[in-house]
Amino acid sequence: MLKHGGGILEASRRHGIPVGDWLDLSTGLNPNGWPAPAITAEAWLRLPETTDGLEAAAADYYGCETLLPVAGSQAAIQTLPLMRAPCRVGMLDTTYAEHPHAWSRGGHQVERLHPDALDGAVERLDVLLVCNPNNPTGWQADPLRLEDWRQRLASRGGWLVVDEAFMDVDPTSSMLPRIGEPGLIVLRSVGKFFGLDGARVGFVFAWPELLERMADELGPWTINGPARQVVRLALEDRTWQQRMRVQLRTDSERLATCLRTHGLEPTGSSALFQWLAFDEATALHTFLAERGILTRLFTAPVSTRFGLPANEGEWVRLEAALAEWAQARP
Amino acid sequence: MLKHGGGILEASRRHGIPVGDWLDLSTGLNPNGWPAPAITAEAWLRLPETTDGLEAAAADYYGCETLLPVAGSQAAIQTLPLMRAPCRVGMLDTTYAEHPHAWSRGGHQVERLHPDALDGAVERLDVLLVCNPNNPTGWQADPLRLEDWRQRLASRGGWLVVDEAFMDVDPTSSMLPRIGEPGLIVLRSVGKFFGLDGARVGFVFAWPELLERMADELGPWTINGPARQVVRLALEDRTWQQRMRVQLRTDSERLATCLRTHGLEPTGSSALFQWLAFDEATALHTFLAERGILTRLFTAPVSTRFGLPANEGEWVRLEAALAEWAQARP
Repeated sequence: MLKHGGGILEASRRHGIPVGDWLDLSTGLNPNGWPAPAITAEAWLRLPETTDGLEAAAADYYGCETLLPVAGSQAAIQTLPLMRAPCRVGMLDTTYAEHPHAWSRGGHQVERLHPDALDGAVERLDVLLVCNPNNPTGWQADPLRLEDWRQRLASRGGWLVVDEAFMDVDPTSSMLPRIGEPGLIVLRSVGKFFGLDGARVGFVFAWPELLERMADELGPWTINGPARQVVRLALEDRTWQQRMRVQLRTDSERLATCLRTHGLEPTGSSALFQWLAFDEATALHTFLAERGILTRLFTAPVSTRFGLPANEGEWVRLEAALAEWAQARP
Repeated sequence: MLKHGGGILEASRRHGIPVGDWLDLSTGLNPNGWPAPAITAEAWLRLPETTDGLEAAAADYYGCETLLPVAGSQAAIQTLPLMRAPCRVGMLDTTYAEHPHAWSRGGHQVERLHPDALDGAVERLDVLLVCNPNNPTGWQADPLRLEDWRQRLASRGGWLVVDEAFMDVDPTSSMLPRIGEPGLIVLRSVGKFFGLDGARVGFVFAWPELLERMADELGPWTINGPARQVVRLALEDRTWQQRMRVQLRTDSERLATCLRTHGLEPTGSSALFQWLAFDEATALHTFLAERGILTRLFTAPVSTRFGLPANEGEWVRLEAALAEWAQARP
């Protein structure tokens, strides 16, 4: 299995700093996630039912009814490659690692592409998969460009898969309004914007026949009852969503400014992270880790990703460490 | 997908009785399941970690460390058939329907067998799968007999799969003490005895290499954080478990006596249900449904399964309906 962010335990061992003393900026999740209410004991005792309102709340929030709730995007990422005979799949050279892992594992031929090479590659691909916005680079795709790719792929029975895990803050570029068009598949998740990563809930949007095949492959009751309840309530909480869209955008800009102030120019960003690809990324990652601040280090390209601090205390701590870094490198 | 018990909504429509007025005896779950405490909002916000104590609590409760937590037995049932090339799989003629469904779907040749035919079939099978105790017939297998079958299967690279979903009340016949022996796979679940069917948590026990392959197939984070927390606490609650073992045994005997008193002789049973296979099973099922009592009807053989009433009010209601039935058929 692949390794992921959030390795506080390992960092704690390596740097000799107690687990509770870390400022964890390694995950790219909303650090002020949706405050779930207490779940009643009864919810654990009944088989989850698809009549509990989750599907309706999701259709309303996403503005699209042709959906399948899954146990996190991860379930969709693992199942999609089983829905096609081995074929040629293109995706970005730097992107969320579970995608190439799953398609390779499914016997497909995966081609990793520079963003500028995507358009030229469409004709030789059967499936093009993009994360929009992309994690960790922050690359974004224009929906008109995506629609052009979808049409060219669909004309040969191909698919365009768009992972919109980081789309919620500004959904204007979402491909969801086009769901129903041949070959278009969109993945969404409540892990990032809502921060409900512990719930393991995501949604697949596509044409009904594909969703039925995926549901059959995944089997019944893949999301437990309490998770269905919590996610339904989060999707219905418009007040929180509106406030959070503003707050996350503000915080992401504050993080970019804070990095620049200390001589660090972000290479890319989304509303939930800033990404720095530069020669000293490993040194910066280690420098911060020695001060109990965990960022996410990537090796290809050498880069580090900063998630958002959760509160003023965490901002102060990050700013102090970055000031130290700037002072140490004149 | 297969249909399962708990179809109160459908029964409500068919018989014109409001959903809230039903006595649901259709599921075979403990009707007084483990009372889960409230889950903190934070538990929904973090990726589940395998260092949270669930594995240790399960190893302690089951007395066996070589385990893999899965999102309900269902996840194991669906994944096991992918772990072997197409082969010959034997299972009981009347058993939990998801097993034959999953193996057939995986391209295996499934042979349905009468309990008396199992022993003679072992030599021509690659996999023998039994539920012990069996659902819904209550058939039970002696561990020495199972060990004989395992040895004969394993000598040819075969497997013995034992689904012990209904084993918790009296685990003396469990095959868990033999885990590690070649070809032995045991499934357990917290859905029945603990009644935590809404949590979607089960465990697979087998040799480490198979568990690693299954974990890789299932991918990361298949059980959400709150479910891991609730199930850990349930597995650690020895006081509740001891009390519940006594209570369920008493209640199951009371149910058998209650049926007999009204002229209905159970064909089979476990601590969580009584099963009646007889010509009038459909008539009895309908008679009770017309009175808002839902049992589980099976068509092959024609039979109906009674779960346990939850409280004295439910007992009184069931007894009254059975008395009516007895009076109507002199």
